[in-house]
This record gives sequence, C-alpha cells and structure tokens, in this order.
Amino acid sequence: MPYVNIKVTREGVTPAQKTELISGVTDLLVRVLNKNPATTFVVIDEVALEDWGIGGLPAEEYRRRHKA
Amino acid sequence: MPYVNIKVTREGVTPAQKTELISGVTDLLVRVLNKNPATTFVVIDEVALEDWGIGGLPAEEYRRRHKA
Amino acid sequence: MPYVNIKVTREGVTPAQKTELISGVTDLLVRVLNKNPATTFVVIDEVALEDWGIGGLPAEEYRRRHKA
Amino acid sequence: MPYVNIKVTREGVTPAQKTELISGVTDLLVRVLNKNPATTFVVIDEVALEDWGIGGLPAEEYRRRHKA
Amino acid sequence: MPYVNIKVTREGVTPAQKTELISGVTDLLVRVLNKNPATTFVVIDEVALEDWGIGGLPAEEYRRRHKA
Amino acid sequence: MPYVNIKVTREGVTPAQKTELISGVTDLLVRVLNKNPATTFVVIDEVALEDWGIGGLPAEEYRRRHKA
Repeated sequence: MPYVNIKVTREGVTPAQKTELISGVTDLLVRVLNKNPATTFVVIDEVALEDWGIGGLPAEEYRRRHKA
Repeated sequence: MPYVNIKVTREGVTPAQKTELISGVTDLLVRVLNKNPATTFVVIDEVALEDWGIGGLPAEEYRRRHKA
Repeated sequence: MPYVNIKVTREGVTPAQKTELISGVTDLLVRVLNKNPATTFVVIDEVALEDWGIGGLPAEEYRRRHKA
Repeated sequence: MPYVNIKVTREGVTPAQKTELISGVTDLLVRVLNKNPATTFVVIDEVALEDWGIGGLPAEEYRRRHKA
Repeated sequence: MPYVNIKVTREGVTPAQKTELISGVTDLLVRVLNKNPATTFVVIDEVALEDWGIGGLPAEEYRRRHKA
Repeated sequence: MPYVNIKVTREGVTPAQKTELISGVTDLLVRVLNKNPATTFVVIDEVALEDWGIGGLPAEEYRRRHKA
C-alpha cells in the first residue's frame, strides 16, 4: 500500500514523462519491497518556479546567480 | 488542532461536495477525539488524472484497462 | 482513489479511535463522492506536542496560557 | 537538508511576498539549526478558499459568520 | 530540485532496502527529467499498520479479511 | 490560516530550538502576510538519517563522501 508524492518544478513535464515516473516508481516498490502495484499510488505535483525556494531564493533567481 | 489533507482526482468536485467533506471530517474529529472545530483545518487537493498513478499507470489508462 | 492524511497531537489516541477515524473518513468519501473504498487510503500521523505549534508557541505552552 | 512546506489561502500573495517567505524561513533554519541554505527547500502552496476548511466550514463562509 | 516522499507500512524495511529506494528514485528523476541528484531529496516514512487505513479498515484487519 | 510543515533530519533538535522555529515561522507569516497567529499551525517532523536521501544516497553516506 505505498503512497509516493513527487514534487518537481513546473517546467513542461510531458504526459509521457509523467507516465514514466509513475511506472518507474511503482516498479521500484515492487522490486525492492515486493509491494502490490494495484495498491500503490503515485501523485505528481508540479510547483511553479516562484513557489519553490532554494538557497533562500526563488528557484529562478537562484539559478541565475549560480550560473553567472 | 487537527490538520486533515484530502487528495482526490480532479473530476468535477462541486463546492457543495467540498463543503460536505469539510463538515463531515470536522464532525468526525469532534465526535471521535473531542477536538475543537475552531482549530481543525481541512485542506482539499484536486489532482489531475495524468498526475495520479495507480497500478503503475496514470489513473485514466488504469481505468480503461480494468474495465475492458 | 482518494488519499487522506490526518494529523493530530499525540495524546493517547487508541487503536479503536483510529479504526473509527479510518472508517468514518472512508464512508464520507463513498457517500459524498462515490469513491471506491478498496482504493481509499487513510494515513494517521500522531505529532508530539513539542512538534506542534499554534499561536507562535508549542501546543502545550499555548494551552497553558489560554486556560489561565 | 530541511524541507519546508507553507500552505496559505490563495488571496493575492505577490511574488515579492513569496520571496520574503522563502528568505525568511531559510534564514531561520540557518540561525536556529545551522542548516546549509544550499540544501534548504521551501515549497509554497496557495490553496483556493473553497478548498480550505476551518470550524467545519469553507474558509470564506467561516469568516462571514465570525465577523457578523 | 525534486522532493519525493515515500510512505510505506512499517514492516521491517531494512537500511539496505531504503538505500535502494533512495538511489532508484533519484536515478529515475535523473533519467526521465534530467534532474540534478545533488538537489534531489527523498524522504521515507514508515507508517505503523494501525495508522494506515484501506477499504475503511486498518491495514492489518483489511488483509485478514481479504485473505480468508 | 497558514499551515507550515518543517522537515529536518533527526540530530538532536532541542525543545528550545523547536520553540524558536515555531515562533520564528509564525512571526514571519504575521509580518509578511498579516496572518492571524491563533490560526497558524506549524508541524515539525524529525526524519531519521537513514530515511533522508540526497544525491541518491542516505544522508549520512552522502556527507561522508562529500567531506573526504
């Protein structure tokens, strides 16, 4: 009965990539812990860049400074 | 001081249904644990079908296969 | 496929009360949104009083001040 | 490596306010626990008023009643 | 900057299995979304069986009934 | 009505430090968003080092490699 929540920044994740994440995580739980896929949930949250902070800054600003 | 988070797939949940979920969960916490409703929070998240995985598949695909 | 997370302070919640919370929330989702109980998860977290803040204070200190 | 999630009602929080929340929480973790900001994440969720319950009611209805 | 939370029932997950879950999920995010592992967090929560509900019952009771 | 969840590794956080985190986060929400502290919740989760992954490794192993 696992429940997995994946949070990533909202930057054009495609439905095909989401499908890969869902099947990849589920396979991992089956392989490592012998879980039943029928009761394995995966919920993906895409988070706007202005809502994600790292290094004390919104993600976009953080990247700008750390690339310069 | 309970905090309850309800995640459901985004499939046309109405404001009236949300109101019922909020009052139903709060009543349950008052009845079972004698909690104070004034400090009971309920947060509802609607999750797009492509962001919800079950059985290693996005929810829509999962339903299609299990109905056939 | 709902997922519900209930967080309450750790103050002697009994297994029987947890059973009531689980069945009560599940029944609510069946009744209001016609969800399938077999794919409805409820996860209960008990949180130590020192880990729960309200009004800018740990829960125990908050209660002491607001009872006096 | 802290992870902080801030949930507030969706009522016009500006990007500048989000930036302040991110830097304020990160500074707090640096000051109190000596955490490394480069591995401190802050994720902000804005929740629609109809999705936030308090006192057994959606937030808007709750406020209306408690102001009268 | 992904953040992944894995919740499983507390049933003797070993440190080696946790290590496999952490590396497996991180590899998946690198492969599918080209994420940077240095800023990919994975948090595992083990949940006591009495705190996990499915089908309106605590997990242990649910399994008992569905095996008979 | 904010709800804040702070997750940190379990490494001897003291009750006094938790009190500082709770008051600091609450003050921040009052100052930046004019929130009411009486309905501001802060929940702190301490996560065992073996349950926290970064860089594809459990936190302890990650630190060992990145210090050498």
